[in-house]
Amino acid sequence: MKILLIGGTGIIGKAVANELGKRHEIISSGTKSGDIHIDITQTESIENAYKKLGNIDAVVITTGSVHFGPLTDINNEQFNIGIQSKLMGQINVVLIGMKYLQNGGSFTLTSGILSHDPIKFGSSASTINAAIDGFVRGAAIEMPNNQRINVVSPTLVLESLDVYGPYFRGFQTISSQQLAQYYSKSVEGAQTGQVYKAGY
Amino acid sequence: MKILLIGGTGIIGKAVANELGKRHEIISSGTKSGDIHIDITQTESIENAYKKLGNIDAVVITTGSVHFGPLTDINNEQFNIGIQSKLMGQINVVLIGMKYLQNGGSFTLTSGILSHDPIKFGSSASTINAAIDGFVRGAAIEMPNNQRINVVSPTLVLESLDVYGPYFRGFQTISSQQLAQYYSKSVEGAQTGQVYKAGY
Repeated sequence: MKILLIGGTGIIGKAVANELGKRHEIISSGTKSGDIHIDITQTESIENAYKKLGNIDAVVITTGSVHFGPLTDINNEQFNIGIQSKLMGQINVVLIGMKYLQNGGSFTLTSGILSHDPIKFGSSASTINAAIDGFVRGAAIEMPNNQRINVVSPTLVLESLDVYGPYFRGFQTISSQQLAQYYSKSVEGAQTGQVYKAGY
Repeated sequence: MKILLIGGTGIIGKAVANELGKRHEIISSGTKSGDIHIDITQTESIENAYKKLGNIDAVVITTGSVHFGPLTDINNEQFNIGIQSKLMGQINVVLIGMKYLQNGGSFTLTSGILSHDPIKFGSSASTINAAIDGFVRGAAIEMPNNQRINVVSPTLVLESLDVYGPYFRGFQTISSQQLAQYYSKSVEGAQTGQVYKAGY
């Protein structure tokens, strides 16, 4: 398969590239790095990338920003960061990509455990992650050309423990290598509309 | 209690006003009707209303628009309707309102069954409704001044069956009068962080 991996330079993305790269051609993309540059907050950037790449069998997204901060401080603009990046960025990769993806191709998105297991400072992430899961459930029953869509919802990634550990006390962790298996299941399996709870 | 009801002229809003109006003072608000005008897509409009109203004990929101249409046609702008109205509209009513609401006051939002039980043409609603539920779970653990927050997630409302029935074949319905009980439980009870599955 020819797989477009958006966010290939991050901790999760690298592990996904390692796993899927054993068996498939990976086109790794970052905002300013990788084989092709894609800024998921810009619909033109997404459209241009698909036009350049031609036939793609699978798209995996492991990127997207969200604002973290106390609920009493957060405002509309800070909330908008996650909406434009992690939420609408991923959704637009799907909405635009449906036209370019091969028959039977798949999209695999990334959300996160905070959708239903909240932490302090995480109200925006809880919102955005839940939204992505909802989109995948809704979109799966309307995908054209036998295309599939799933989302991986990870708990805290082991390699991020140093940075995020204090905010996630008591949460299970998952290694990026184990986490990559969920992306493999989504891309190389046949399921659709699934929210894979990864590591919890 | 002094209760601000945003969306008081809709089918759900009227039923909530009937139920809570038996025991409390209701300030009913619509975009262009009611005791005070609030456009939830405009943060200034929300802020101005709170400033005018002074001390409020509870806020109930039963309004918010979302685009319905085939997944293969929907674009970023159409998705944005639900994000600006039903999602960020309700969230901004909370983010701004936390400063004005009485100690121990409550917010009650409205989402919907499509968050996890999707229909054709409903991908945007599935996204937005799930997001609202996620926000409520996340925000509940950080609310200031003993404030509470819940969301009512209704199935198809009986009084909307004529208009929306064809899109919701096989779904349970709930009368607006029965639905209003969930809002009563949220406002007059003591629970927080709850997603009330109403009628399903």
